[in-house]
Amino acid sequence: MFLSKLSRYASSPIREEDYEAFRLSKEGKEIIKLSAGDPARYFKTPKRIVDAYIEALKSNKNYYSDSQGVFELREAIAKRHKKLFGLEVSPEKIVITQGISEGIQFLNMATIDKGDKGIIIRPYYPSYIPYLQIFGGSPIFIDASEENGWDIDISSFSKKIKNEKRIKYMIITNPNNPAGYVLSRKKLIEIVDFANEHDIFLISDEIYDEIVFEGKFTSLSEVANGMPYMILNGMSKSFVGTGFRLGYMLLPNDDPKSSSLLSRLIEIAQMRLSPNTPAQFAYAEGLKDLSAHMREVKRLSNEIKERVYFATKEINKSEYMHAQRPQGSFYILPKLNMEKLKIKNDKEFVSKLLEEKFVQITRGSGFGIPNHIRLVSLAPKEVLKEAISRIDEFCNEHKA
Amino acid sequence: MFLSKLSRYASSPIREEDYEAFRLSKEGKEIIKLSAGDPARYFKTPKRIVDAYIEALKSNKNYYSDSQGVFELREAIAKRHKKLFGLEVSPEKIVITQGISEGIQFLNMATIDKGDKGIIIRPYYPSYIPYLQIFGGSPIFIDASEENGWDIDISSFSKKIKNEKRIKYMIITNPNNPAGYVLSRKKLIEIVDFANEHDIFLISDEIYDEIVFEGKFTSLSEVANGMPYMILNGMSKSFVGTGFRLGYMLLPNDDPKSSSLLSRLIEIAQMRLSPNTPAQFAYAEGLKDLSAHMREVKRLSNEIKERVYFATKEINKSEYMHAQRPQGSFYILPKLNMEKLKIKNDKEFVSKLLEEKFVQITRGSGFGIPNHIRLVSLAPKEVLKEAISRIDEFCNEHKA
Repeated sequence: MFLSKLSRYASSPIREEDYEAFRLSKEGKEIIKLSAGDPARYFKTPKRIVDAYIEALKSNKNYYSDSQGVFELREAIAKRHKKLFGLEVSPEKIVITQGISEGIQFLNMATIDKGDKGIIIRPYYPSYIPYLQIFGGSPIFIDASEENGWDIDISSFSKKIKNEKRIKYMIITNPNNPAGYVLSRKKLIEIVDFANEHDIFLISDEIYDEIVFEGKFTSLSEVANGMPYMILNGMSKSFVGTGFRLGYMLLPNDDPKSSSLLSRLIEIAQMRLSPNTPAQFAYAEGLKDLSAHMREVKRLSNEIKERVYFATKEINKSEYMHAQRPQGSFYILPKLNMEKLKIKNDKEFVSKLLEEKFVQITRGSGFGIPNHIRLVSLAPKEVLKEAISRIDEFCNEHKA
Repeated sequence: MFLSKLSRYASSPIREEDYEAFRLSKEGKEIIKLSAGDPARYFKTPKRIVDAYIEALKSNKNYYSDSQGVFELREAIAKRHKKLFGLEVSPEKIVITQGISEGIQFLNMATIDKGDKGIIIRPYYPSYIPYLQIFGGSPIFIDASEENGWDIDISSFSKKIKNEKRIKYMIITNPNNPAGYVLSRKKLIEIVDFANEHDIFLISDEIYDEIVFEGKFTSLSEVANGMPYMILNGMSKSFVGTGFRLGYMLLPNDDPKSSSLLSRLIEIAQMRLSPNTPAQFAYAEGLKDLSAHMREVKRLSNEIKERVYFATKEINKSEYMHAQRPQGSFYILPKLNMEKLKIKNDKEFVSKLLEEKFVQITRGSGFGIPNHIRLVSLAPKEVLKEAISRIDEFCNEHKA
């Protein structure tokens, strides 16, 4: 066989309808696309960031950067974590990546041999799974319970995995994509205690940390004490710079796991030379004036909140689905009332919806939660309203 | 063990002295850096490309692009290959990557299971090896013979690998990094015949295809006929856009290997969402006016030729080393006269040279050719002259 066995795991549920949507749009159909979590489709990148990007280009900062990332960007990131979360961290402990996706990939490349496991909270961000499997690993799932406001029952899970010998890490996504919950400080401490007890390296993907509507966001770093952990974050969402492809990995501690992993991650980063350099200078500038950024992201977050709350309300008017109101991020994850529908599953739902109503959303099974759908709630209200009314119409046309 | 066994293969000889060079420069030492093949450190990105980049940023094209890459960029690349090499190829057969490095990584992710092999011509571009090993594969080397003007003896190699059952591909780098040779059409046909005979997928890394001083460059596509193959190329070198991180993979044919690989590569590309979007629009613009580009790259290539020829002559004045004059790219690969030196090997040579003379170059063993050093010949002549004279001085101070 020409293709590798492990590469069959490559998958991307969020983008699996893209080709069909593209084909339909070439046929002249107007697609309402609520599948990609891309604020830059609806909001402008702040002018001061664009200006810094332009300045970097004009002054020919177009070379390969340090593989670990431009030093002044790493300094600015360190300062951000100091100011927002009281974390003392050196720029040497930060690696700039081409989006968090690359960070996830590096993490798995660095830690996963055949047979190793990663703990993933379900529903999950899809790419966590194939990047783990493609290096021969497999996930152990712990479910966030929708019925209990996405609560995670750590103590019964802790018993369940007592005999698992090959767990390399656990990833949490906080605020959550796709479920929109924000972990309480109490729950986060429970997770840290669990990880300490089982000697598990913790990874906290905090890309939505500044898009929170309800409750208070707690960074893992605020409760992790000296344990081995890594924070993932980046420029895509709160700086409206998805297309710039900049994320980072931050490993503040000096324990053996953190130190050896950091060294290995840098070696892996060197193989691909560097992330986009002028974008790194733009991101550094974006972070330097942190109060300007806080104002920008507050405005952005308020606007997103309006849209998310509005869309949740609209969704809950339909008899065919029900969604909890998200506390953060910009995703809504309605549960479909499948008994009322003559449709096999969420995959068929999503695919037929695109064909018949030209609305592109993502199937819940892609996030490990079948019979759900995920809607990105970034479009203007009238677009969201139209999309949701088409979904309801679609359900009516397929009712059992 | 926390780190994965396979990740120990991660390595990057070109960047292994970067940290030490950075440390020295922080101490106030002025380092002459001839290690990174980065034209953007010495030449300006053409204004029309920078302008297009700025225009994309200003018009907020800052979103995730299609995972396969912006369609108009892929169209422009297809046209380039039509115009320069007479190749008919659809934009659907092209995948935009974050530099060729990402392409190499995708290739190995898509094809290599534990125990698989890739044929690599030695000396080689370093990253080919760890990306192969990190997925459980290993290289089979075929040597280009320095004594015979870097000739590659395909026919005896063909007998040697008769019983190898698990060869997935063969990579050629043409024009070559680090040896600077350009493959003749005749040799390329020999390689194609060899690949056909053994049913081996061919990959041609042609990133230096427009930086040729002597002889005529032949693209693999000009002699490959219907066989399964892939071309790798990108924006870094001839568009002076290393820091933009844009490369591409082109698989023009419809045979089962090419088709299945293309589909898998797209699935893998989707997992990391997209390359930098505004940079893609800049690259598209850079390609659209192909005659403007040809003028720009001619000027660039002529200037590089001057520097490369000058540096080769300077190197050959020293009794401690000898280099063949490169036909293309911008690397010089002198052989060290080790008998005349009280130095263990090329690794020690390079490391001591940095400490004592503040010149950073790369050890030949990193390219699979010990007792050699690689110099990037992009700096202005006076800088090259100074660096080479320091190397000669260094040799004098360490003579046997």
